[in-house]
Amino acid sequence: MRPTELNENTVIDTIVRKLDKMPNVPISFGDDVSAIHLGGGKLAVLASDMLVQSTDVPKNMSHLQAARKAVVMMISDFASKGVQPLAILTSIGLPRTATLKEVEGIGEGLNKGAREYGAHLIGGDTNETNEVVIDCLGFGLSEDRKILTRKGAHPNDILITTGLFGNAPAGLRLLLEGLKADKHIRNDLLAAVYEPKARLREGLELANGGGVTSSIDSSDGLARSLAELSKINKVGFEVNTLPVTSTTKKFTTLNKLSEFDLVFYGGEEYEIIATIAPNSWNRLQRRIEKVC
Amino acid sequence: MRPTELNENTVIDTIVRKLDKMPNVPISFGDDVSAIHLGGGKLAVLASDMLVQSTDVPKNMSHLQAARKAVVMMISDFASKGVQPLAILTSIGLPRTATLKEVEGIGEGLNKGAREYGAHLIGGDTNETNEVVIDCLGFGLSEDRKILTRKGAHPNDILITTGLFGNAPAGLRLLLEGLKADKHIRNDLLAAVYEPKARLREGLELANGGGVTSSIDSSDGLARSLAELSKINKVGFEVNTLPVTSTTKKFTTLNKLSEFDLVFYGGEEYEIIATIAPNSWNRLQRRIEKVC
Repeated sequence: MRPTELNENTVIDTIVRKLDKMPNVPISFGDDVSAIHLGGGKLAVLASDMLVQSTDVPKNMSHLQAARKAVVMMISDFASKGVQPLAILTSIGLPRTATLKEVEGIGEGLNKGAREYGAHLIGGDTNETNEVVIDCLGFGLSEDRKILTRKGAHPNDILITTGLFGNAPAGLRLLLEGLKADKHIRNDLLAAVYEPKARLREGLELANGGGVTSSIDSSDGLARSLAELSKINKVGFEVNTLPVTSTTKKFTTLNKLSEFDLVFYGGEEYEIIATIAPNSWNRLQRRIEKVC
Repeated sequence: MRPTELNENTVIDTIVRKLDKMPNVPISFGDDVSAIHLGGGKLAVLASDMLVQSTDVPKNMSHLQAARKAVVMMISDFASKGVQPLAILTSIGLPRTATLKEVEGIGEGLNKGAREYGAHLIGGDTNETNEVVIDCLGFGLSEDRKILTRKGAHPNDILITTGLFGNAPAGLRLLLEGLKADKHIRNDLLAAVYEPKARLREGLELANGGGVTSSIDSSDGLARSLAELSKINKVGFEVNTLPVTSTTKKFTTLNKLSEFDLVFYGGEEYEIIATIAPNSWNRLQRRIEKVC
């Protein structure tokens, strides 16, 4: 058993304490992406996200879907910072038992994920592992003035999300616990698990529109994302409307589950959580609704 | 058992066949690094290298040494292209049993590797895996005109390496097979296994000096690197002097092993193999010997 002190945050904090900090980095360690100055107000933006079979790949998810998900997880980091990813590298660990068909699936999934979001896979590495590991590295360009970060929320800002929650965690419970669902509910929930989407267009619009004071992706769950924004910005949040999908509502009623838990403590959902300066809200909302 | 057709090259070829190619990339898929144009003759250069415990970490190698090696493997890719890596992201997979001390070792090793070569770790990701996986992603800047690639060797070019071979594979056999070695030999061979070095200064000088027609790193073994250069450039190579260390020479004599095999078929050695235009050779040699 892993000692309780070694959760993901402890691992990251322990490693960060051992590092000589790069001077003058535009984005704090631990944000959704990393960046360095290129001069002239330009930034090189980088993010990596590691998908692991035993941790992130539900049973019956194909290699194509898993590889596409690996890309989407990483693209979501770019989305939450309002940065277009241009190029992707992938390091792939494969067990000895991998078949040609599985590897083809991985290639197709990587390409599908990249092309859906306007990026290209341009390189990477392969190695032999005990289970499938797909680590995606994204590269993009942004501007100092434009990139969104986790830091900057003020009291009275408006808290928004780019979509509703619950379907992916509900889908996972459907798969694992054999709960009740009609065909329509089942399709919706499993699509959220097998075909997640990143909110790149929305993130680009948020960054272009101005007025966003902080932004984070929700892949670790809505509660953790809010806790993180809260800790960094020393603000609290009031959530007046539970951002729950109608499908998750039906599913929780049918199975006597808590929609609150699925919405806040799920994870594997790739929405953007952002705070908006009150006087920018109407303008931004119109702008995003036009495009997305 | 993995079917024989699924070696690393088959995996890469299978995936590459599924990809929409990015237009106008300055470096072919499968070279040591990837790159994209930034405009004005500048390139963003990226490389990823995945270290896997069961494949790349010999018994008794500490977490610090393994993490440092993960960085060095990736830096060596930059070295062979003559590009200074600036920033590193690391995706780390850890088993549940990982201890705080091991994670501290990983942090120290990553920082050590990065700082030895003038780079900084600026971000990454962690996840739970069945074994330790450390994927290092490097970012640097170069110029169109300056970056070295695998393509460009001509007949009559001079074949060089930045150092001598044999110690790392000899060290691995020493560890695995309990062969004979006095203390001096043992120290040399184990240093090559546990504390590998990348030839970054040499690579930067090769790129700055001009006259290098092709270049590759030797981490998959000298024979495979030469075969790769040969295939890409449609040239053959004559190796007149076996580039073997004196320690490996003594070790092979003592244990009746083939120095030829250790030099050509070893791997895990991070030299640069390059071809030089004959009229540039004297100048380049002086330049490199002055600095390195």
